[in-house]
Amino acid sequence: MKILLVGASGTIGSKVYDRLNQNHEIIRAGRNGPDVQVDITDEASIRAMYEKTGNVDAVINASGSAGFAPITELTPEKNETAINSKLKGQINLVLLGLPYVNERGSFTLTSGVMMDDPIPQGSSAAMANGGIRSFVTSTAIEMPRGIRINSVSPNLLQESAERIGHLFAGFEPVPGDKVALAYQKSVEGMQTGQSYEVY
Amino acid sequence: MKILLVGASGTIGSKVYDRLNQNHEIIRAGRNGPDVQVDITDEASIRAMYEKTGNVDAVINASGSAGFAPITELTPEKNETAINSKLKGQINLVLLGLPYVNERGSFTLTSGVMMDDPIPQGSSAAMANGGIRSFVTSTAIEMPRGIRINSVSPNLLQESAERIGHLFAGFEPVPGDKVALAYQKSVEGMQTGQSYEVY
Ligand SMILES: NC(=O)c1ccc[n+]([C@@H]2O[C@H](COP(=O)([O-])OP(=O)(O)OC[C@H]3O[C@@H](n4cnc5c(N)ncnc54)[C@H](OP(=O)(O)O)[C@@H]3O)[C@@H](O)[C@H]2O)c1
Ligand SMILES: NC(=O)c1ccc[n+]([C@@H]2O[C@H](COP(=O)([O-])OP(=O)(O)OC[C@H]3O[C@@H](n4cnc5c(N)ncnc54)[C@H](OP(=O)(O)O)[C@@H]3O)[C@@H](O)[C@H]2O)c1
Repeated sequence: MKILLVGASGTIGSKVYDRLNQNHEIIRAGRNGPDVQVDITDEASIRAMYEKTGNVDAVINASGSAGFAPITELTPEKNETAINSKLKGQINLVLLGLPYVNERGSFTLTSGVMMDDPIPQGSSAAMANGGIRSFVTSTAIEMPRGIRINSVSPNLLQESAERIGHLFAGFEPVPGDKVALAYQKSVEGMQTGQSYEVY
Repeated sequence: MKILLVGASGTIGSKVYDRLNQNHEIIRAGRNGPDVQVDITDEASIRAMYEKTGNVDAVINASGSAGFAPITELTPEKNETAINSKLKGQINLVLLGLPYVNERGSFTLTSGVMMDDPIPQGSSAAMANGGIRSFVTSTAIEMPRGIRINSVSPNLLQESAERIGHLFAGFEPVPGDKVALAYQKSVEGMQTGQSYEVY
């Protein structure tokens, strides 16, 4: 398959790349490429990316940001990062990408454990994660041309524990290789409308 | 208690009003009042409302819109209604309202069944609903001053079946009076972080 992987250079994206690269042709996307450049917070940039890639069999997104703040310090403005990146960025990859995905192709988006197992300062990210899960549940039933859509909700990755583990007290981090399996299941399997919770 | 009820004139809001009006002082809000005017899609309008109401014991929101469109016709622009109204409108009622809610007060937001039991054309609404549910799960753990937060996810109301029932094939509508009970439980009970699913 020809797979567009947005966020390919990231902690999760690089594990997904390693997992799928042997058997598929991967187009690695991100603000800094390397195969194609895209900023998911910018609709025009998403459109330009799809014009460059042309049709693909699968779109995987492993990018998306959210602001972290205690609820008493979370302003409407700070909440915009999650709205524009993790939520609308991912949704617009689907809405604008649909015409470019081949029959029986798929989308795989990324949410995260904080929507189910909340942590301090995580409300804005949790909101985006929950929005993505329900968007996937709903869009799956009316996707055209047999196109499927799933999301992966990773726990804290072992690879990220040193950087952000202090925010996840008592969480048991999961190996990135295990998280990558969920993306493989979404792309190579037949399921749709799933939230793969790798907790 | 002094309860601010946004969307008081609506199908759900009027049932909530009937349920809580005997034992509480209700401030009825909406774009057309009658007690105070607010447009939840407008931050300045939310700020002005709270300046007028002053401190309250509970904020209930029973308003919020979303665009309906098949996924193949859902554009980023059409998705903005749900983002600005049902999602950000409700979240901003919380973020901007926190300083006005008394100790041990509460917020009660509204999501909807479509996030769990999807219908055609419902992806944008489902996204907002799922975002609200996860926002509530997460904010509940770090609310200051013993403030609680819950959301109610109503099934299609019997009172709305004539108008929108054609979109909900095979759903069994629930009485508005039953839905109003969930809001009462949220306001008068002690629970927090719940999604009351009145299915
Ligand atoms: N790591 C974890 O433990 C964990 C757990 C649960 C969920 N998640 C979620 O998984 C996603 C990826 O996390 P990660 O830890 O792998 O992130 P990461 O290591 O920071 O990598 C992010 C990737 O996305 C790209 N990117 C960032 N902003 C972008 C934008 N606006 N447009 C396009 N590409 C962009 C980056 O490349 P460029 O800089 O070149 O753009 C990079 O390839 C996030 O949504 C995160 O919340 C992560
Ligand atoms: N009815 C159902 O079967 C059902 C089922 C599940 C979920 N829901 C959800 O419950 C919520 C309320 O539904 P409903 O059927 O009761 O709606 P509704 O009958 O249309 O009433 C909406 C209420 O909200 C107010 N309102 C509308 N836009 C507003 C805005 N921008 N700012 C402030 N107030 C606004 C309206 O008053 P003004 O016109 O004066 O502003 C009215 O009081 C919606 O989010 C809906 O999706 C409804």
